[in-house]
Amino acid sequence: MNTYFASFLEANQISQVQSDLEEYGKDRTKMHAPDPSIILFPKTTEHVSKILSYCNNNNISVVPSGGRTGLSGAAMAPNKEVVISLSKMNSIASVDSIGSLIEVEAGAILESIQAEVAKNGLYFPLDFASKGTAQIGGCISTNAGGVKVIKYGMTRDIVLGLEVVLMSGEILDLNKKLIKDNSGYNLIQPFIGSEGTLGVITKATLKCVPKPSNPQVALFACESFEQIPEILKEVRTAGYDLAAFEFFTSSGKDAVISHINSISYPFEEEYEFFTLIEICASKDDDMIDLMEILAEKELIIDGTTAENSSEVENLWGLRENISESVSMMGNVHKNDISVPVSKLIEFVTKLEKLVNTKYSQYHLVLFGHIGDGNIHVNIIDKEDRNISDFKKETHILDQEMFELIRSLNGSISAEHGIGLLKKEGLKYRRTELEISLMKQIKAVFDPKNLLNPGKIF
Amino acid sequence: MNTYFASFLEANQISQVQSDLEEYGKDRTKMHAPDPSIILFPKTTEHVSKILSYCNNNNISVVPSGGRTGLSGAAMAPNKEVVISLSKMNSIASVDSIGSLIEVEAGAILESIQAEVAKNGLYFPLDFASKGTAQIGGCISTNAGGVKVIKYGMTRDIVLGLEVVLMSGEILDLNKKLIKDNSGYNLIQPFIGSEGTLGVITKATLKCVPKPSNPQVALFACESFEQIPEILKEVRTAGYDLAAFEFFTSSGKDAVISHINSISYPFEEEYEFFTLIEICASKDDDMIDLMEILAEKELIIDGTTAENSSEVENLWGLRENISESVSMMGNVHKNDISVPVSKLIEFVTKLEKLVNTKYSQYHLVLFGHIGDGNIHVNIIDKEDRNISDFKKETHILDQEMFELIRSLNGSISAEHGIGLLKKEGLKYRRTELEISLMKQIKAVFDPKNLLNPGKIF
Repeated sequence: MNTYFASFLEANQISQVQSDLEEYGKDRTKMHAPDPSIILFPKTTEHVSKILSYCNNNNISVVPSGGRTGLSGAAMAPNKEVVISLSKMNSIASVDSIGSLIEVEAGAILESIQAEVAKNGLYFPLDFASKGTAQIGGCISTNAGGVKVIKYGMTRDIVLGLEVVLMSGEILDLNKKLIKDNSGYNLIQPFIGSEGTLGVITKATLKCVPKPSNPQVALFACESFEQIPEILKEVRTAGYDLAAFEFFTSSGKDAVISHINSISYPFEEEYEFFTLIEICASKDDDMIDLMEILAEKELIIDGTTAENSSEVENLWGLRENISESVSMMGNVHKNDISVPVSKLIEFVTKLEKLVNTKYSQYHLVLFGHIGDGNIHVNIIDKEDRNISDFKKETHILDQEMFELIRSLNGSISAEHGIGLLKKEGLKYRRTELEISLMKQIKAVFDPKNLLNPGKIF
Repeated sequence: MNTYFASFLEANQISQVQSDLEEYGKDRTKMHAPDPSIILFPKTTEHVSKILSYCNNNNISVVPSGGRTGLSGAAMAPNKEVVISLSKMNSIASVDSIGSLIEVEAGAILESIQAEVAKNGLYFPLDFASKGTAQIGGCISTNAGGVKVIKYGMTRDIVLGLEVVLMSGEILDLNKKLIKDNSGYNLIQPFIGSEGTLGVITKATLKCVPKPSNPQVALFACESFEQIPEILKEVRTAGYDLAAFEFFTSSGKDAVISHINSISYPFEEEYEFFTLIEICASKDDDMIDLMEILAEKELIIDGTTAENSSEVENLWGLRENISESVSMMGNVHKNDISVPVSKLIEFVTKLEKLVNTKYSQYHLVLFGHIGDGNIHVNIIDKEDRNISDFKKETHILDQEMFELIRSLNGSISAEHGIGLLKKEGLKYRRTELEISLMKQIKAVFDPKNLLNPGKIF
């Protein structure tokens, strides 16, 4: 095997050094130990094609690897797989300003793409906390979401074209710079969100949008969670162009304030529920008008609008640092779920009741992209006991929460995918028929089941 | 067969009357004669399921039928098929203002959905000329485009959930009101744009957007086609939020002016090239500022902004009535193609040269959604000769034009799909590998090839 790879890859494109095997054989999850056989760093699509074709012919399993920021284990290589890291394929072509699009290689870092697009007076709509590390190929493979989904959609909505290498080594060059093409089945879509199980994405053409005009940010405090969806409804029917609609509670806010010195709490009094709103305003006092409407309707009890960029940063900091701050509080069990927006109140009420009555040893911290019905559910062990007991108990709690989510037609994985970690949860969201169709689609693209095997199902 | 259908359908849900067979067995194309065996009008998803299951078990081919406004023959039933018309499944649920979405049955008329959404202070982004007749199930099955794609995307981009019945009769209830769901492969996408070959769509959940703020419309005249993409680049890099960027030439304009009395030409002088621009303005004089910038850069030679709704209607009328007006000029051969926006000039230049040198008996009328790289190519017989000669000659012209489109990485069908009419063109856009993958996907969903057989490939 190594001789073959060495026949077309340079020495620095092949590694079996232990530290590389560990680093490139994992993502951000810690449930499985990385144990790949070799890490390859192709520099061209042809390299990827040769590697895959060889592995396909020799029945060797392959795991594609991006920025390794995934939270479901989809990029884990625990079984002597060949890992293909796309990190040396990271070129970013200049923006096509006429077509409002950009062509990139799969290893390009999200933040670098954002910067390149901004240089051309346009805006790249995908944005989330790990943008400095996440590679666009991984974003596409996981259909990444983030803080601007409410306005721009998921990654799926900005992909115009893909180049993909199938496990057979065959190369699909799909759509490239074309915006409209209704000639037969769309073959780009299956690869988006398929967690590297159908093909290895090598290049992408992505949509850029106009720079948001006059963004305005505010933080509002509410007396009860029930008011949050009401605020959303009010903002929407009043015609505001929402760019973000985020939510957190005092426990998340307290975690940030006590762990991140640079972030300050903007209110004098303490409150329980918060919503952070960003709009693309049509006039300078849009957000102040909105605050007045919401106060008049008694949907908020306090509010502050950001007057400058450091205030914008501070308000967003309160929301964006919750995940990291909560992790510093001890053992944390995380889920990333979604329910229809109209079912949010029912979900939160029932989940709080479940945790408070049956799992009172835990502290529940909720936050997330509430405008999309997406809540990050964090369970923290108040007493910081034995980790294996914690894992066992939260596993049982998960089953009860997943049943609740199923009853509300929600998803057990809103953004993070299934990977290895959430395979057991899949049946709470997808029917047997759906899983059977997925497996048949997998067999169309990878009949020998060698590409990222064991992930999703 | 009829006895079985009569066991669960009422008399008015079954027709073998000749006029119905002709009406429901066709779309807007005239290349094939409709010849279905029976027309069924299910009222529930269960009806659709029973019909499909029966036909699947008895090896009977089925054609799903919507508003029959298609232009590629995808809804034609020329071979004694059972036609399922969704027209009696046309309910529209009230808008979910919190989630900003609407649930509809497949037979709901596009214009009715637009009206229902508007009543709730929101906006439904899908819009095109046949909105008064087109059913949403057909829009989804053909991934319909239209005049607002540049801002809101194709139909694909607004579908949140689908209910689909497979040929086996099995029902897929996909996603419903959920905005975010990354739990395994997305099974909604395969049905969008698959022209009724993979399943029968019975219900859909669709995204609504905020009402466009301050829309402004202008018509600009240019000296050469080369200036049109330059204008697009200018508008984009200046940060304007484009809602539409349309194009037509004097020949299209002349056709409208001479056939539609209510539409008037807004300029004193005659010009050759026109672009109609609609923006969502951030201030009242945005469009006037834009006109000044474009004039200063010598990209336009004349321009007018619409000052009221009747002027908006008149400018849009100039563009939207071209297709119909051109059809009144005699024998017309239509194509709906796309190229990357950056290749528009090359395409138009080469196509004009091809027609002027080799097909000078024809008149070339070009117009379309130029901001998406989408051009409607109309070939008109100047001498109005024998229709069969015209068809033969334009068929040869098509092959030459398709080669040109292929060389520019364009598509032979931007919006209208493949259906029956463009099957021969498919190979100019899709590779053998892609067509093979499509056929395998077809076999996953409809292994006996009974659903809308003979369409696409």
